[in-house]
Amino acid sequence: MSQNKRALVIVAHGSRREASNEEVRKFVESISGKLGKRFRKVEAAFLELAEPSIPNGIEKCIHTGAEEVIVLPYFLTAGRHVTQDIPAQVELMRTQNPNVVITIAEYLGADERVADLMASLV
Amino acid sequence: MSQNKRALVIVAHGSRREASNEEVRKFVESISGKLGKRFRKVEAAFLELAEPSIPNGIEKCIHTGAEEVIVLPYFLTAGRHVTQDIPAQVELMRTQNPNVVITIAEYLGADERVADLMASLV
Repeated sequence: MSQNKRALVIVAHGSRREASNEEVRKFVESISGKLGKRFRKVEAAFLELAEPSIPNGIEKCIHTGAEEVIVLPYFLTAGRHVTQDIPAQVELMRTQNPNVVITIAEYLGADERVADLMASLV
Repeated sequence: MSQNKRALVIVAHGSRREASNEEVRKFVESISGKLGKRFRKVEAAFLELAEPSIPNGIEKCIHTGAEEVIVLPYFLTAGRHVTQDIPAQVELMRTQNPNVVITIAEYLGADERVADLMASLV
């Protein structure tokens, strides 16, 4: 599959504090810039409390012609959100879009470099 | 103040999934190893759903003789937890321990290197 048929959805928790959701959207824009043309689209999505939802974020990508969507959880720990809630919403989208390959990448906190980053903060 | 009077409390959200809380405790142990003797104690604490709570984590540090406690939020976004809930619990501990300097460090997600890390994951 050519790389420009791939899209990326970065999923954050979502907050009642809209400034926090806006922070996530800006963060995702920044990542999009770093990734250049590796993805035809890079979208922010939220598990709850903010828009777009995960299904809506994936839909947006599919509407631009994406044939593969990678969902990347912007989460630090493998709590229920990462182990159950995100996979459930992704599974729903797989069922509705059988011609699109939708995968879930490892959540951010699984990367060992996060500990180095934390240690450097203090 | 000599450095070995300082303690660090790393605060995660806490999960109903105990494996996730255990992941945080192991993560904090790993950071403690990286920090060497810079802190007399490095504790994990949880905003909710797991033990120790933030007050209990701070108490543990004070009981070992810490005169300064740095609270580092292991959070990616500045939602209500970071802007309101953690400061409220820390303020309570300040009131109860007027001789201890308790400060809150920037949350992890405020660091620009997180975006580079995310970009490298896909």
